[in-house]
Amino acid sequence: MFSFEVLHTDAAGARRGRLTTPHSVIETPAFMPVGTQATVKALRQEALEELGAKIILGNTYHLFLRPGHELIRKLGGLHKFMSWNGSILTDSGGFQVFSLSDLRKVTGEGVRFRSHLDGAEHLLTPEKAAEIQLALGSDIAMVLDECIETPAPREKAETALRRTTAWARRARDYFLATAAEQKETQWQFGIVQGATFADLRRQSTEQLLDIDFPGYAVGGLAVGEPHRVTCEMTAEATALLPRDRPRYLMGVGRPEQLADYVALGIDMMDCVLPTRAARHACLYTSEGRVLIKNARYAQDQNPIDAQCTCSVCRRYTRAYLRHLFAAGELTAAILASHHNVHFYLDIMRQIREAIEFGNLANFSSVMHARYAAGPA
Amino acid sequence: MFSFEVLHTDAAGARRGRLTTPHSVIETPAFMPVGTQATVKALRQEALEELGAKIILGNTYHLFLRPGHELIRKLGGLHKFMSWNGSILTDSGGFQVFSLSDLRKVTGEGVRFRSHLDGAEHLLTPEKAAEIQLALGSDIAMVLDECIETPAPREKAETALRRTTAWARRARDYFLATAAEQKETQWQFGIVQGATFADLRRQSTEQLLDIDFPGYAVGGLAVGEPHRVTCEMTAEATALLPRDRPRYLMGVGRPEQLADYVALGIDMMDCVLPTRAARHACLYTSEGRVLIKNARYAQDQNPIDAQCTCSVCRRYTRAYLRHLFAAGELTAAILASHHNVHFYLDIMRQIREAIEFGNLANFSSVMHARYAAGPA
Repeated sequence: MFSFEVLHTDAAGARRGRLTTPHSVIETPAFMPVGTQATVKALRQEALEELGAKIILGNTYHLFLRPGHELIRKLGGLHKFMSWNGSILTDSGGFQVFSLSDLRKVTGEGVRFRSHLDGAEHLLTPEKAAEIQLALGSDIAMVLDECIETPAPREKAETALRRTTAWARRARDYFLATAAEQKETQWQFGIVQGATFADLRRQSTEQLLDIDFPGYAVGGLAVGEPHRVTCEMTAEATALLPRDRPRYLMGVGRPEQLADYVALGIDMMDCVLPTRAARHACLYTSEGRVLIKNARYAQDQNPIDAQCTCSVCRRYTRAYLRHLFAAGELTAAILASHHNVHFYLDIMRQIREAIEFGNLANFSSVMHARYAAGPA
Repeated sequence: MFSFEVLHTDAAGARRGRLTTPHSVIETPAFMPVGTQATVKALRQEALEELGAKIILGNTYHLFLRPGHELIRKLGGLHKFMSWNGSILTDSGGFQVFSLSDLRKVTGEGVRFRSHLDGAEHLLTPEKAAEIQLALGSDIAMVLDECIETPAPREKAETALRRTTAWARRARDYFLATAAEQKETQWQFGIVQGATFADLRRQSTEQLLDIDFPGYAVGGLAVGEPHRVTCEMTAEATALLPRDRPRYLMGVGRPEQLADYVALGIDMMDCVLPTRAARHACLYTSEGRVLIKNARYAQDQNPIDAQCTCSVCRRYTRAYLRHLFAAGELTAAILASHHNVHFYLDIMRQIREAIEFGNLANFSSVMHARYAAGPA
């Protein structure tokens, strides 16, 4: 029920591929809109379908705390719970434990933390993270990894790497025993760590290859380090990763960076940026960012982006969007989120075309000229 | 371009009619979802179309203050500004001036007030209210009336009534001179006032009939007085209003009350209740209210209302809606608003059928049994 095939690789190593899960066929490179709490914020599932999203991301940490993975399991899994028939990738919960919760204590066993919602104490282990994701029934699950701050001292990075590898092995063992027993259909991906140390990145990659996953993610990047470093660390991993397995760079990225990661051999990405920026009145267009609250748009009867084919740009004007944001209307977030997700999915469509036509470097230059300056 | 015809009147006086404006044909009795700031909160215009809404209400007070009627005029009017091709009725701004703004001072000239947004001082006169609505280009405009508190002493009600009639005449004169000159196509409705005094309600109605409007509203009701009194005062007006003109009861009502007003000969109503209740997690169903945050719905895999045909009930469960509200997701408001507006529009469809089948009293009893108890 799962497969991944690389259809074409360009001179630089960018891959045009196809990932098949029990729920959808995903043309890669693909961007996954983030649906943290079983919804992509401000978008009905009908809107995601209209936008052509084939896979979204769900956050294990949030869903574990609320409404709880056992409830979702009981109600038939996350797809049924949220009525989403496309694919779902869930993270392991690790990143959010390290970024959102209080009183984190990492031991060899796992990570003990307090919920940011009610202060209740929980222990997340590699086995538990796998169990939760099996309960959620996502198409692709991630192993628990240890996420550390950036920049991290080498010694801390080494410790976290050892732990990440040990946890990956335990997660894989648990998954193989349990998933088979429960006849669950899920792919489990390993996560390369190693902070900003090239040799640690290589070491992490090799250790994960020993464990053998159907796909690999690169984690712990795009957390504050320069884009150049993100690319270098990603390249260390992708150089060693098997060509026939999908590669997922976690939590990226800005519009102009997506093609860079693809050029390094990345097949999948996710980021809250399109929806978060939308809620903050930052709209992406083929000519750069439009900060729609700006007074210059008060009488602008053009669509957000004259080149855009989304249903928002076909119907509504910048003047109207600006008014909705100024008035604090929920409809502002709905329309802006719809457009920005369309923009990201359209970038990926253009990237896939550029790979096929051997034109990715050129596309990347254009995007950098439009977006590298200014805030995300 | 405008017309109103009564197709059928039942034994009690309920009217099944058809109102035609330059933008739509509206089967009456009709409910108008409220789009205060050029949007029905949390609903795209595409959703309103899907729901079959033919006419919505816009609030002159809000649109005058933000983005401003001159801007909307310049951009081609409210329909074009918000990309809504159905009909729009705008109120006069009077009710919001009296309920939202600071430092109101009513004189014969008009009402001076401070904006609740920035404290700027404005003067709203009958002529100004008509001018703003001509700039907005709504299909139906309301004259400025003086809204007073309930219960009001008789003397205050008499003064407000005199002013309301004088303002109605000035508004009509201004409208007839200006609209014809500018070739604007709009119907202007008068508003019956008179607080809770039957003779004042009759007096107000007769004075408005002298001025001669294409339609009449009943205002200043459903502002705290018992439902029985709302009905009595409404009946005083509708008994005198011409049978061939549409009648609009402003700002009503609770689900179980709609048929009562229709039985008194009302053709049009508006209320924020379906969308406001939705945002507060109160969902209307054919079996009564569902307060969806209640823990009893945590595992409820039924739709909000098994009898409902809306796109939310066809796809999403109560358990999912409850989770979205618990998690504070915008999607909760989107789905709940969609359902509740569908519910209100469907009540009106059932009311229209009941009139045709001579069954309105029975429908009303059923609705009272379901909804009269409990909060709105």
